Amino acid sequence: MSPVEVRLRVIYGDTDQMGVVYYANYFRYFELSRSEYFRARGGSYVDVEKRGLMLPVVDASCSYRAPARYDDVLVVKAEVTRMKRASIEFSYEVRKDQDPAILCTGKTLHACINREGRPTALPEDIVKLLS
Amino acid sequence: MSPVEVRLRVIYGDTDQMGVVYYANYFRYFELSRSEYFRARGGSYVDVEKRGLMLPVVDASCSYRAPARYDDVLVVKAEVTRMKRASIEFSYEVRKDQDPAILCTGKTLHACINREGRPTALPEDIVKLLS
Amino acid sequence: MSPVEVRLRVIYGDTDQMGVVYYANYFRYFELSRSEYFRARGGSYVDVEKRGLMLPVVDASCSYRAPARYDDVLVVKAEVTRMKRASIEFSYEVRKDQDPAILCTGKTLHACINREGRPTALPEDIVKLLS
Amino acid sequence: MSPVEVRLRVIYGDTDQMGVVYYANYFRYFELSRSEYFRARGGSYVDVEKRGLMLPVVDASCSYRAPARYDDVLVVKAEVTRMKRASIEFSYEVRKDQDPAILCTGKTLHACINREGRPTALPEDIVKLLS
Repeated sequence: MSPVEVRLRVIYGDTDQMGVVYYANYFRYFELSRSEYFRARGGSYVDVEKRGLMLPVVDASCSYRAPARYDDVLVVKAEVTRMKRASIEFSYEVRKDQDPAILCTGKTLHACINREGRPTALPEDIVKLLS
Repeated sequence: MSPVEVRLRVIYGDTDQMGVVYYANYFRYFELSRSEYFRARGGSYVDVEKRGLMLPVVDASCSYRAPARYDDVLVVKAEVTRMKRASIEFSYEVRKDQDPAILCTGKTLHACINREGRPTALPEDIVKLLS
Repeated sequence: MSPVEVRLRVIYGDTDQMGVVYYANYFRYFELSRSEYFRARGGSYVDVEKRGLMLPVVDASCSYRAPARYDDVLVVKAEVTRMKRASIEFSYEVRKDQDPAILCTGKTLHACINREGRPTALPEDIVKLLS
Repeated sequence: MSPVEVRLRVIYGDTDQMGVVYYANYFRYFELSRSEYFRARGGSYVDVEKRGLMLPVVDASCSYRAPARYDDVLVVKAEVTRMKRASIEFSYEVRKDQDPAILCTGKTLHACINREGRPTALPEDIVKLLS
């Protein structure tokens, strides 16, 4: 399961008065890279929803090592690091373009639920898509 | 149609690296005061949606005179300044608590549409509620 | 170290197309309750910064049990659950007003650093303030 | 002064429970395209700040014609539509990739101020850069 990378530019609206990216915004970056992960494999999270399934986040975490700043081009790497019958774990790494130093790492755990909100086994084609 | 005021505390996440509230976030504050406007009159925007109607923003503007900063308590005043058959205009003023100086003013124009997205006359009880 | 609670209203801008509060926004709520924690003890995070210190987040996590929705009044509880020489851990609980069910829980770990970004012992008065 | 276009992907965090991009978030998109405008001309807003100048927004507006949705690739066009001694006006258009229909248009007016917050004439090289 090779990781997928997405590039993004830090805007003013992502920073806070400390002059760095506000801690909550990394979770937005994680989501962007997660959706690119689906696309890079020929699918889309939209397809998941069209089948009546959702993958809400049940756990999210981030460890911040060094700050990102306004105008930085960030590279966000996403990969699936665990898949169970009805859940998926994504892991993330954020660094600056052309710079190997990791700025932060994170994880999100997603449950697979149906329209009624019940835990549901991940359909086989989605398992295949992601792995 | 007397205005309604709501108080809120500026968080770090609302500021940017200039040390002031990011310009887009005032539109979030406007929304907060708008929803309080409904509630202060004994209704709720949720009720509007339960009837199959929506009031999406079709025009929004803000004039910024002085910045708000981290930890400021802001007072956001909302009032209905125009109501037509199928649209409502809200106007806003933002100032700091205990300070008469206006930090910014804004307006939002809302169309009344039904579930199919068609312009629809504002129901009489909603007109009454807001005026 | 008794916890501090803050109330807030969920706005449209906090929700996503699943109809629930977007996962990253809970970290904004955590920050709001964290700053109230300082104030409820007679201090302010602004005072910390005036002394040339900062408390950036080095770890953040959230476990989501049940969703919050538009127009909900949320109660966010913050408390200091650990204090070391140069770091503080806050823990959070979010529930709806008048409802004991926990919607989510979270933690943030903060380093104490000086203007040069070096880890610095928490000054005694701040330790006293928070405990 | 030829316009500059930037592409971006709508994430879940940009949408609201109406299933469309939240109205305030277009102002974030405007900022992204504005900063690309500087870069496309060989400069950067960072350079402006390094010279002790800032270009805060003093007026912002947006007209919404049709909604953008989750996973849409948006094309945001920015151009300078007026330049005075100490102010610049940017205009924006947002549409979907591969679709000529305009989703929304907007404007931002920026004052040029120095570190003391005083209105200041735009330096000649910045005028040249932008025009």
